[in-house]
Amino acid sequence: MEQIGSNQSFGGQQLRFKHTSNTLNCEMVFSVYLPPQASDSNAKLPTLFWLSGLTCTDENFVQKAGAQQYAAKEGVIIIAPDTSPRGEDVPDDAEKAYDFGLGAGFYVNATQPPWNTHYRMHDYIVEELYQLVLAHIESVDAERIGIFGHSMGGHGALTLAFQHTDRFKSVSAFSPIVSPMTCPWGKKALSGYLGNDTKTWRTYDACELTREVKVHLPVLVDQGTADDFLAEQLKTDLLIAASQEVAYPMTIRMQEGYDHSYFFIASFIGEHIAFHKQALT
Amino acid sequence: MEQIGSNQSFGGQQLRFKHTSNTLNCEMVFSVYLPPQASDSNAKLPTLFWLSGLTCTDENFVQKAGAQQYAAKEGVIIIAPDTSPRGEDVPDDAEKAYDFGLGAGFYVNATQPPWNTHYRMHDYIVEELYQLVLAHIESVDAERIGIFGHSMGGHGALTLAFQHTDRFKSVSAFSPIVSPMTCPWGKKALSGYLGNDTKTWRTYDACELTREVKVHLPVLVDQGTADDFLAEQLKTDLLIAASQEVAYPMTIRMQEGYDHSYFFIASFIGEHIAFHKQALT
Repeated sequence: MEQIGSNQSFGGQQLRFKHTSNTLNCEMVFSVYLPPQASDSNAKLPTLFWLSGLTCTDENFVQKAGAQQYAAKEGVIIIAPDTSPRGEDVPDDAEKAYDFGLGAGFYVNATQPPWNTHYRMHDYIVEELYQLVLAHIESVDAERIGIFGHSMGGHGALTLAFQHTDRFKSVSAFSPIVSPMTCPWGKKALSGYLGNDTKTWRTYDACELTREVKVHLPVLVDQGTADDFLAEQLKTDLLIAASQEVAYPMTIRMQEGYDHSYFFIASFIGEHIAFHKQALT
Repeated sequence: MEQIGSNQSFGGQQLRFKHTSNTLNCEMVFSVYLPPQASDSNAKLPTLFWLSGLTCTDENFVQKAGAQQYAAKEGVIIIAPDTSPRGEDVPDDAEKAYDFGLGAGFYVNATQPPWNTHYRMHDYIVEELYQLVLAHIESVDAERIGIFGHSMGGHGALTLAFQHTDRFKSVSAFSPIVSPMTCPWGKKALSGYLGNDTKTWRTYDACELTREVKVHLPVLVDQGTADDFLAEQLKTDLLIAASQEVAYPMTIRMQEGYDHSYFFIASFIGEHIAFHKQALT
């Protein structure tokens, strides 16, 4: 794990690291925000993994969300990974589509060739990066780790948290793809990475998991009403219905007039970080 | 003036416009943040022009500075123009250098061919865009307009404000080039745009203007101590010396550990907007 960037931000440090991932069989880059409270060598701080959406790298969130201000105020560490494996050896969509292949790992473990040799973002986040962060960033409190994300990354945050309630104690999402099994982005990704047996898709569908999981985490979802992807791809109403069906208490807020952009995320990122801080305390 | 973008942000609107500039002889794009207070049709709000640094367009500040939060809180409009003329007809540096030509207008009126047909950013900001904004954005209070910027744009903010104390009532800067007459970036730009008679350069040098101006505006400058350009290009100590020499009261703060990036700007943009709001009230 080699540090490749450092910028002071709100009294803390915005850092960037690269490492060789054994899970993804490639070199990966991720970002870490250490709040000022981390300079106390005894500090053990709540930590959030941020999962980004289609086409993003680790940098979009770091540069556009304005999260550092709130992380500094609340004393929270934020880990921002990339959205897919990277490098010359890593296969991409034949037509370089924005919604499959590079920049579109969908936080699943691919089973279909040629994707299964690199596209294992589920295990990368939950196993390898999780352990790497615990081993190398001393201020991380292993008992207080949450996860959040946007769009494809909102899908990632919800599904990884619901699958691993032992590792993530709180979860939130902006504009998540709540049911990839029933929307065009999701069907393309899941059939490509996992094949056509839809039974294998269910463990990556937040609505399916909502109905199955026994442990109910604190959940916050924000969705803009002016989001162009809401009706066809995001389908927030399916998550509302699933959570009501099984009496899983989730806070799902429709935010009037907001779209799918980072301007929406920035407007509410402070509330999400405060939500996690409270849930993790 | 045609609207080409709109995103809701912190309850207000982040807008983008294009228009044909007669001053620059090309089509230009600029961004406007309207805070929630602007939805009151009777509102007259303080307004800030933000001038960006080398290589930037209108978008860098809008996406990375996190200014909307504070503009919404304080009820301040922010206008963010581009940093040079644009388009196929507009000449660029022969070697496409980042510090001359496109993206590097330096907020001067060029007198030397081929630059003098397009590179007139001084007049564009102070005359054309200023009047365009007053004519089309009804919430702008013509009596409460300030200006701020970063690096080359910090130079622009200081020199345009010092030259036009009737139009700008407050000024602040991050990491400004305080004396283009005595640094490599400035000498290259001023000799290229204005020719080799250094008498013509003085009206674009914040330190020279500090010694000459009769009206003393409220001035705030922030400069990071870990800024790689500080010693050779920015030379904050020259502005400190000039202001002391003529007893021009300026608040010039050296910020420990901060660099030249937008992470620095984001960390203090709230204090700058609050400074202008107070100075303009």
